[in-house]
Amino acid sequence: MKIIPIITLSTDFGYKDPLSGIMKGVILGINPGTNIVDITHGINKYDIREAALTVGMSYRQFPPRTIHVAVTDPGVGSSRRPILVVTENYYFVGPDNGIFSVVYSESQRVEVFHLTADHYFLSNRSATFHARDIFAPVAAWLSKGIVSSNFGELITNFVKLPFPVPVMPTRTTVEGEIIHIDHFGNAISNIKSENLSALRSIKPDGTLRIVAKGKQIALKEYYSQAEDKDLYALINSMDYLELFVCRGNASKDFELKVGDTLGVMLAG
Amino acid sequence: MKIIPIITLSTDFGYKDPLSGIMKGVILGINPGTNIVDITHGINKYDIREAALTVGMSYRQFPPRTIHVAVTDPGVGSSRRPILVVTENYYFVGPDNGIFSVVYSESQRVEVFHLTADHYFLSNRSATFHARDIFAPVAAWLSKGIVSSNFGELITNFVKLPFPVPVMPTRTTVEGEIIHIDHFGNAISNIKSENLSALRSIKPDGTLRIVAKGKQIALKEYYSQAEDKDLYALINSMDYLELFVCRGNASKDFELKVGDTLGVMLAG
Amino acid sequence: MKIIPIITLSTDFGYKDPLSGIMKGVILGINPGTNIVDITHGINKYDIREAALTVGMSYRQFPPRTIHVAVTDPGVGSSRRPILVVTENYYFVGPDNGIFSVVYSESQRVEVFHLTADHYFLSNRSATFHARDIFAPVAAWLSKGIVSSNFGELITNFVKLPFPVPVMPTRTTVEGEIIHIDHFGNAISNIKSENLSALRSIKPDGTLRIVAKGKQIALKEYYSQAEDKDLYALINSMDYLELFVCRGNASKDFELKVGDTLGVMLAG
Repeated sequence: MKIIPIITLSTDFGYKDPLSGIMKGVILGINPGTNIVDITHGINKYDIREAALTVGMSYRQFPPRTIHVAVTDPGVGSSRRPILVVTENYYFVGPDNGIFSVVYSESQRVEVFHLTADHYFLSNRSATFHARDIFAPVAAWLSKGIVSSNFGELITNFVKLPFPVPVMPTRTTVEGEIIHIDHFGNAISNIKSENLSALRSIKPDGTLRIVAKGKQIALKEYYSQAEDKDLYALINSMDYLELFVCRGNASKDFELKVGDTLGVMLAG
Repeated sequence: MKIIPIITLSTDFGYKDPLSGIMKGVILGINPGTNIVDITHGINKYDIREAALTVGMSYRQFPPRTIHVAVTDPGVGSSRRPILVVTENYYFVGPDNGIFSVVYSESQRVEVFHLTADHYFLSNRSATFHARDIFAPVAAWLSKGIVSSNFGELITNFVKLPFPVPVMPTRTTVEGEIIHIDHFGNAISNIKSENLSALRSIKPDGTLRIVAKGKQIALKEYYSQAEDKDLYALINSMDYLELFVCRGNASKDFELKVGDTLGVMLAG
Repeated sequence: MKIIPIITLSTDFGYKDPLSGIMKGVILGINPGTNIVDITHGINKYDIREAALTVGMSYRQFPPRTIHVAVTDPGVGSSRRPILVVTENYYFVGPDNGIFSVVYSESQRVEVFHLTADHYFLSNRSATFHARDIFAPVAAWLSKGIVSSNFGELITNFVKLPFPVPVMPTRTTVEGEIIHIDHFGNAISNIKSENLSALRSIKPDGTLRIVAKGKQIALKEYYSQAEDKDLYALINSMDYLELFVCRGNASKDFELKVGDTLGVMLAG
């Protein structure tokens, strides 16, 4: 069977202007045989961290060789470099501003090419819309089988954003923070199920106490297990500890925001 | 000509998170030859009734054999069952919470399978994202030609939501209610053109009086026929009686909301 | 290689209702081999000018023979005509309300057909949803190779909206106005780079002064060149003079709106 190349788009361009549509036109003009998939165009404006998390949550769900284009690019036109990232299974095209930080930390093989071969760019380039002028055409040429190293030189000093990681101030305590508020108002933390397993392994018959906003929070398995409109926690589908209100909005109801801290303690 | 299978997506996942994008990745990983069509990801959060109406308004517009995936799923992870619905012309995949109620009431043949054959699911399943772990992969395998009965057992006690139906308190009166406010603020009722035809058949030279919010409302044929910013009614493209303000927002301007009642009377 | 026909959609239908999804179903029912591309469904409700700009900004980025369907249609059902526009490179399908005004002004060849051949429409037509009943099916039949003239008669009295054009009250001054506020709050004017070049050609060593809202505004090349949260200008990727706040929202921060005037003066 002939393989149909997949190009995904994740941007902060919103749903009002034709910017993402224009990217699709450019791609189809170069390779009409691609399957272009919208992941989201609703990333918070200029929010590179949220974009990095969005890419991190979604890229592995696609078949190998998928080309992921991600653009949240406040530095467009400046000296920040356009890059192509090649990992063991995927390609990524976008600005070198840390947007692929989660990918870097999760991949065995990371090759990053500074995109300099401008015969693969649109010929009339702007200083403000590299998604159209550089990222879309490079993704399209890549989908036609152009070899990665043809697009530019390997670099090693690409930008990695430091993401907050959970800390263990004592052997029986994990402290983390909220890293994302989702569409439903759920507050997703950087504490992962493995952190909880580590605590449990110390004392298998102990119980875990979750505390946020000065409240003790019960751990559930799924949303509708919560009996009331109080704040609860669960391990979500991406393996993160998440605070939620059943059929409510945890972020609004309990004033939770990105950066708020939470802790998990192993109790006696 | 080779048939390209179509899988549609209707969810309340919004346009900010990568959830619908992740579903697309899972589907393409199993069957790269599908045409995935976004119907909407803007259903009101947790609103199963709105989701049922959304599915009901759109499914018949697609070619036979289209697979419709619909997900508004506050009970995910609980005992609510994942199902596959087979009608004379279409397939539907989603939670057994009433989301396919309109489909059930409009189809001649309704076979509902409880999805239990978990070798068609993703192997690492969460308790909170069955759209990724169960619905998307089942839709993808179905699009590859797997026979419906392979996915699980036939059930008959599937959930049907009661939808409000218009009543006729007298032979010359129909009473209904608003069931949906659309993007333009139009207030769509559950009174259908056939209800109006029934009244007209009683007295062909009589006139119909529409009353809502204590106001008498004139019946028009199309929006720009309204002469001012008052509230008007028409039979909309889905055959429902709809209240509107020309180039305005009926819901905001006249405080109309889902559940508000309206009546049509045959006048002398 | 077999050419896959492309049909793009630009509407004011929003992302809540299944209207754009329904259009896709109708198209795929007639021609399952089309590649349907969402440009945007977020055009301001009833805003034909914004729709015309949206079409104008995007259509040329697609491959030749692309069929662009655009619908912002407050006059649906009235005597306003449904049309097919054929230019040297593209097809356009939509209402005859000026939505293709930018296309008319930029194309060498413009043939406009009044869509009257109703055997290419859906058989049950509403007075309120021509996007489903006329525009989608005509686009689909066109993508199957039906000759343009088969859809109706050539007309010449199609609607062209007058767009505000920059004026030169003196030989060294250009005055224009804001024509669009984008997702990032950038205020895009109708002054183009060619207007600035014309001023510069008068006195190559002169400097250009941009004034809006009583403020003098510095000209930059890209967003992150701005040193602070003040209002700046640049020539954007569509070649228009645009006012912006770096990582801010120019429209909100400086109360800029469509119709506001701005000027560029050649200084001594």
